[in-house]
Amino acid sequence: MSATAFPAAEIPSDTPSPGAHAAVRELLDLLGPVAVMAGADVPARNRNDYSGLLPTEPLAVVRPASTAEVAATLRICHAHGVAVVPQGGLTGLCGGGRAQDGEIALSLERMTGIEEIDPAAATMTLAAGTPLETVQQAADAAGFFCPLDLGARGSCAIGGNLSTNAGGNRVIRYGMAREMVLGLEVVMADGTVVNSLNKMIKNNAGFDLKHLFIGSEGTLGVITRIVLRLFPKPGSRMVAMCACEDYATVLRLLGEARSGLGPLMSAFEVMWPDYWGRAVNELRARNPFAGDDTAYGAYVLIEALGTDPEADLPRFEAWLERLLEQGVVPNAVVAQSLADEQALWGVRDACGELHQTWPGHLAFDIGLPQTAMDHYARACKAELAEKVPGCETVFYGHIGDGNVHIVAYRAGDAEQPKDAVEEVVYGLVQKFGGTVSAEHGIGTLKRRWLGHARSPEQIELMRTLKLALDPKGILNPGKVL
Amino acid sequence: MSATAFPAAEIPSDTPSPGAHAAVRELLDLLGPVAVMAGADVPARNRNDYSGLLPTEPLAVVRPASTAEVAATLRICHAHGVAVVPQGGLTGLCGGGRAQDGEIALSLERMTGIEEIDPAAATMTLAAGTPLETVQQAADAAGFFCPLDLGARGSCAIGGNLSTNAGGNRVIRYGMAREMVLGLEVVMADGTVVNSLNKMIKNNAGFDLKHLFIGSEGTLGVITRIVLRLFPKPGSRMVAMCACEDYATVLRLLGEARSGLGPLMSAFEVMWPDYWGRAVNELRARNPFAGDDTAYGAYVLIEALGTDPEADLPRFEAWLERLLEQGVVPNAVVAQSLADEQALWGVRDACGELHQTWPGHLAFDIGLPQTAMDHYARACKAELAEKVPGCETVFYGHIGDGNVHIVAYRAGDAEQPKDAVEEVVYGLVQKFGGTVSAEHGIGTLKRRWLGHARSPEQIELMRTLKLALDPKGILNPGKVL
Repeated sequence: MSATAFPAAEIPSDTPSPGAHAAVRELLDLLGPVAVMAGADVPARNRNDYSGLLPTEPLAVVRPASTAEVAATLRICHAHGVAVVPQGGLTGLCGGGRAQDGEIALSLERMTGIEEIDPAAATMTLAAGTPLETVQQAADAAGFFCPLDLGARGSCAIGGNLSTNAGGNRVIRYGMAREMVLGLEVVMADGTVVNSLNKMIKNNAGFDLKHLFIGSEGTLGVITRIVLRLFPKPGSRMVAMCACEDYATVLRLLGEARSGLGPLMSAFEVMWPDYWGRAVNELRARNPFAGDDTAYGAYVLIEALGTDPEADLPRFEAWLERLLEQGVVPNAVVAQSLADEQALWGVRDACGELHQTWPGHLAFDIGLPQTAMDHYARACKAELAEKVPGCETVFYGHIGDGNVHIVAYRAGDAEQPKDAVEEVVYGLVQKFGGTVSAEHGIGTLKRRWLGHARSPEQIELMRTLKLALDPKGILNPGKVL
Repeated sequence: MSATAFPAAEIPSDTPSPGAHAAVRELLDLLGPVAVMAGADVPARNRNDYSGLLPTEPLAVVRPASTAEVAATLRICHAHGVAVVPQGGLTGLCGGGRAQDGEIALSLERMTGIEEIDPAAATMTLAAGTPLETVQQAADAAGFFCPLDLGARGSCAIGGNLSTNAGGNRVIRYGMAREMVLGLEVVMADGTVVNSLNKMIKNNAGFDLKHLFIGSEGTLGVITRIVLRLFPKPGSRMVAMCACEDYATVLRLLGEARSGLGPLMSAFEVMWPDYWGRAVNELRARNPFAGDDTAYGAYVLIEALGTDPEADLPRFEAWLERLLEQGVVPNAVVAQSLADEQALWGVRDACGELHQTWPGHLAFDIGLPQTAMDHYARACKAELAEKVPGCETVFYGHIGDGNVHIVAYRAGDAEQPKDAVEEVVYGLVQKFGGTVSAEHGIGTLKRRWLGHARSPEQIELMRTLKLALDPKGILNPGKVL
């Protein structure tokens, strides 16, 4: 990362306001050129996220090295009424970390590192800019497990994971990112530092403040330090792929897995036949049911994490054998090796390769009550066939958590029919009582659909909170609300 | 419960303000005498909680039968600026549900009942006034498990459990009450109904609003309906009592239990020798280590909930056997029957009988990082010996969760030396970075100590939230803040 100085004389002439101009000058004076880069010197990485939108031209990027510098940055920007966009690893999919033209990006990229691991409390205290993979590795080295995991682990920052309340594949067992947090240090819009670096699981002394900042996408405060809860390392892993006759069987299997595997169940991932067919045929994932690849109505990947490397697998197999004998599932495969595990997960993870055959596809991240999912999928396909003829879809997702992903694509279109597909997908979400974002967040991309998932009273309450905590509206303006 | 009418002519002359007088009249006109009782007709149950404080003289109690009636009540009270105190089962220990003289108690006692159990989503939708025991029984009847449990289960209301973010014995596995909630319906101070009855585990569409109301003791809104997450019924239960040489061994055992039992561990309860001696000698709990009752430095009750009634107990015993062989624990007893389980839990639950020998004792509910607990206990005893001579204490608690209970008593005092003991207990909590309430809440009783657990910036942020959501300050005034 270059840290080119931004000489005061070169402040761009299109600076949005005298306040912004003055703020950048003050920030440069205070923090120096290593922390403040403006105009053309703003690095490419700070100009965009993974949303697929065009790069922007932020007024400047500020890269503080400490909480005190974050506080100073916000005090200055608050005084001048300049918009500040907190940035972590910039791997968000909805534009939440993307500074608009003329705004100041506040990047936590220099605030990294593990401060403490407390084995007795099973906690890790760390800086918000730390990459998730570093967190996972540090937990592992200390004999613990950090269950939060997502594809962007090498790039995303833990602070960004919390500000978007990241999900991932293990939510059914460990919860969302929110559930892994015990304490936060947050800098408020006016620069006030609120230190709630609590390490205790139980603390009922006054309001819970951390949940305000988790999942609010940097619009209420900037997360600077974190106390994470760590978990015991699993001693065993069991993975199975189950074929189901239909969606009713999927729900039956979910109930059986809940009672039979109990708290060991760590994933329950469902693939509809449309997804399965593409994954094993076009994307070349290895089909564990070779020769029989379209015979079933749904496919379920089940993972369990146990404590006993010897006894757990036989127990898992016996549980599944019983379901086969009872006819609950007509076919199932249990991984016998790490390679098997990876091959089974490979079918589920093939979604990452959909862009090969469907370049520029539309991706959705909706939530629905489990009973509604298959009805929703049918209704969605029917309505798309009518309103967006030629549009194909695949359905798959973390059904145990109520989260389904949809990928839509119309071959031959120079530009995908985004608005028309969104109208159908989110219109039906509203009808079925679901949510427009189960895990990716709102950012700017889904802002117009927020009202499809939340009531006017809920949105009004969000506005009340925003106004109370950031009365000047300088924190990540235009995001979420 | 009598539902005596409150004739308008009998509105007491000591009505605090013309507004309050008018509000009661309007409420009576709107909701009728079945819902509104005033002055001397306020039932005894609505005049106090379990805090040990004196009964109060509320202006009136309003007992709405629906969310619409709660909303109407708050609209009227808001218009007249009259204080409203939400009441559930009134089993709180800190005065949070106790209406002060001249305030209106808003009791949810008529809003009870399970509306829906969704087996696929594993959720229960219910009214906030429903007693916890009814919730547990309904979950059980539907083949599920509601893990929230506390001594007051027969009397407390689920809405009160959430407004105080109740804890209990199974927090180490299932989390606090907060973690069991998927959705809430809340009535705001001005009567606005905010319906967030979400049933999905993952919902990142905008700010999370439910956590604002959970644990804020009715000061930010009134919880009227709830979506609870249900869990699979455990198929087995294992209970052991372990003796430990010292507190360092307790921490070692906690680490072993985390990795060896994994997510099956449902309780890790520690008793210091001071507690153990009283429990087995004075309170006649059955001593599982008969003849050896003061030989150890700490005693740990471990519970695990599994899925397999046949295989789980032998595995649990094998795990503990290994620890005995390795010398981690010098002595341990595993329950072989339900009677054994009850006897082992009986030692831990003997705390409920401490009042027999220590009538009017002082009870504390603090939280501390696990490593600090034994240091804290020693420091606390030393400082009490110096500053409150003759004061005896016992220590026990949910150490796996960072929560320790202290009971203090000085024999011979007509009135217990509350202020002096609190100074010591909470002063050291501040010094050791703990919390003044791990699970009981703040209410009025611990308000003066809030600053020992939360920073001025945190308290200021709480005030900002209170002002934003309840600008007239009518909701449970004087509680928490």
